[in-house]
Amino acid sequence: MRTQVGIVGAGPAGLLLAQMLHQRGIDSVVLEARSRAHIEARIRAGLLEQGSVETLHAAGVAGRLHREALVHHGLALRFGGRDHRLDLSALTGGKVVTIYGQQEAVKDMIAIRLDAGLPLHFGAEEVAIHDIATARPRITWREDGVARELDCDVIAGCDGFHGICRPSIPAADLTIFDRIYPFAWLGILSRSPPMSEELIYARHPEGFALATMRSTAISRLYLQCAPDEDLARWSDDRIWAALRTRLGDGLKDGPILQKGVTAMRSFVAEPMRHGRLFLAGDAAHIVPPTGAKGMNLAIADVRVLVRALEAFFAGRGEALMDSYSATCLDRVWKVQRFSWWMTQLLHRYDDHDAFEERIRRAELDYLAGSTAAQTTLAENYVGLPYAD
Amino acid sequence: MRTQVGIVGAGPAGLLLAQMLHQRGIDSVVLEARSRAHIEARIRAGLLEQGSVETLHAAGVAGRLHREALVHHGLALRFGGRDHRLDLSALTGGKVVTIYGQQEAVKDMIAIRLDAGLPLHFGAEEVAIHDIATARPRITWREDGVARELDCDVIAGCDGFHGICRPSIPAADLTIFDRIYPFAWLGILSRSPPMSEELIYARHPEGFALATMRSTAISRLYLQCAPDEDLARWSDDRIWAALRTRLGDGLKDGPILQKGVTAMRSFVAEPMRHGRLFLAGDAAHIVPPTGAKGMNLAIADVRVLVRALEAFFAGRGEALMDSYSATCLDRVWKVQRFSWWMTQLLHRYDDHDAFEERIRRAELDYLAGSTAAQTTLAENYVGLPYAD
Repeated sequence: MRTQVGIVGAGPAGLLLAQMLHQRGIDSVVLEARSRAHIEARIRAGLLEQGSVETLHAAGVAGRLHREALVHHGLALRFGGRDHRLDLSALTGGKVVTIYGQQEAVKDMIAIRLDAGLPLHFGAEEVAIHDIATARPRITWREDGVARELDCDVIAGCDGFHGICRPSIPAADLTIFDRIYPFAWLGILSRSPPMSEELIYARHPEGFALATMRSTAISRLYLQCAPDEDLARWSDDRIWAALRTRLGDGLKDGPILQKGVTAMRSFVAEPMRHGRLFLAGDAAHIVPPTGAKGMNLAIADVRVLVRALEAFFAGRGEALMDSYSATCLDRVWKVQRFSWWMTQLLHRYDDHDAFEERIRRAELDYLAGSTAAQTTLAENYVGLPYAD
Repeated sequence: MRTQVGIVGAGPAGLLLAQMLHQRGIDSVVLEARSRAHIEARIRAGLLEQGSVETLHAAGVAGRLHREALVHHGLALRFGGRDHRLDLSALTGGKVVTIYGQQEAVKDMIAIRLDAGLPLHFGAEEVAIHDIATARPRITWREDGVARELDCDVIAGCDGFHGICRPSIPAADLTIFDRIYPFAWLGILSRSPPMSEELIYARHPEGFALATMRSTAISRLYLQCAPDEDLARWSDDRIWAALRTRLGDGLKDGPILQKGVTAMRSFVAEPMRHGRLFLAGDAAHIVPPTGAKGMNLAIADVRVLVRALEAFFAGRGEALMDSYSATCLDRVWKVQRFSWWMTQLLHRYDDHDAFEERIRRAELDYLAGSTAAQTTLAENYVGLPYAD
């Protein structure tokens, strides 16, 4: 079997890449280790930058998104017992963010690809990549017990942080930047209407909390907790009490549909290319979820990769493939900075001294009163400009 | 002897306070431990916010400043081998900063006070303050060997970080916030024209450097160094070589008129008032010099104190005296945040890991490309709004 681009991973990066390549007449095969049911049910991020929505639209996969997603023009920061609304649209010349669960975007792209009869293999076991430093890289895997092999011109590693692509690069050729935060998020999905039409980011002496949503009927709520938090110690009652303390009385409770603990990490692997292997999305970098940037960064990577592959397969050479990593990383690091900044500004650090606490509080006070400072938050939140 | 306001310290805070009180018909006596020659020769900060110049002008002490000072509309950040100019005026609706040595402002205010025949005592030895928790506080000192005493309604502690006023407050009534940085500045004054018409803040792998000036003929240059740096190890040649490495080839050398090492510290004592003692300027807070805020913060404190004392002596009660500390501290902490931010952004930290280094670099790259981010720097640099 052979294709032009072998794509490992059917998350947002892999599926969007496959679709954008298809639009440009470039063949690809997508391999996914998990089942379709698994990845369609997997709850992940749910906030799209303005440019991410435009990219999905241009890729022809935003039909349901346009019908069902919630468009937000602002957000609230809650600290010192008060709400401070940031008018994202007014601060950014009319830009918005869009609430649409990552798994919904994934469902849409899977359906579109399968309807078009394009290759997408779920349940691919023992996936391995080979000869990535050559012009004929290969992917091998087992499917229904049968050994398979795919010859490619290029492999796209879109298989996430725990995937097999990044570890296939010789360790000596990668530089790793890694930061583990001393806290995590306890997140729930609840069948209850959101407490506000917009997101609320709360800094409270007990710790950070975030009120967001999946729809007008489903709330998504997060609490800062210990990195090794034991979910068994969190009854529904305890969760609602803690959320109410940090977010205030407007919170509406309801049946908890899902609970989980999300680790907080900043991670970058450089470079994002090795020979004919190109990493995109979580395979190359992880951001803490505070800035809601994970899926958006993946989409930005894919845009850069599509341009590079389009030029390559059109016979216009490898210049854009050569610059892929540097082009992506310039924006990746700016987004890492924003995600780190939002995280350290809003979380409780047990090891912060009194001076650091006052500096954080002064930064929030400054933000509450300065249009320029609010604009820096807003322009990052709705999405920094793309390189292209 | 008695007066309405006993002022300890003839630095910018004490002298400006005395002058502004005099304008309002309130008597004061200024006591200074050092000689006139000493404080007139003492090299300190040299950059005034727009509001500081307006305050000195309204106080009637800006005549020579208007003739001799240099007005700057921008500054340069140098990193990654390139200059990034920030147009402070364009970013702040026309505001500027003004270069005028603190000791020049001090000379002007001393001359004006002495010309007016108003009390200003240099060489006051063994200054002590008493009964500050009562309505009749006193100051005692020795002058030319004679014991003196001054009865006051109010005492203003304008005697700097090492002065006697802050330690006169019971330690249990003060909360101290303190941060010592793991580096210092080696500063020189040189008889050589500035390398640029505006300030250059340079981040270099070897450490921070700053090129500023006192006039078109005198340069003021700083190098990040160790906190315990031994000046004896720095020949003039070594200093110029290090400056040239960090600042570039445009640097013009000349005779070094003065050398010194400045420690870097963030410090706040809360509250800034105890009974009838009011702390202003360095007596209450120290900022690292990166943001050039020390004298400007002192001037902002004095503005608040003058309003409070004016109301008090006009029989309008103590409400503004009661709110003095909180009013000052709101702005003090925002300025502390800015000074800390500029410091950590531009200095080399030997204990920073690779992730933190990349975050700093991403912040500089973001700053270089974002008008909003540049505006946050500019609006702090030209001076945040006053409370009044």
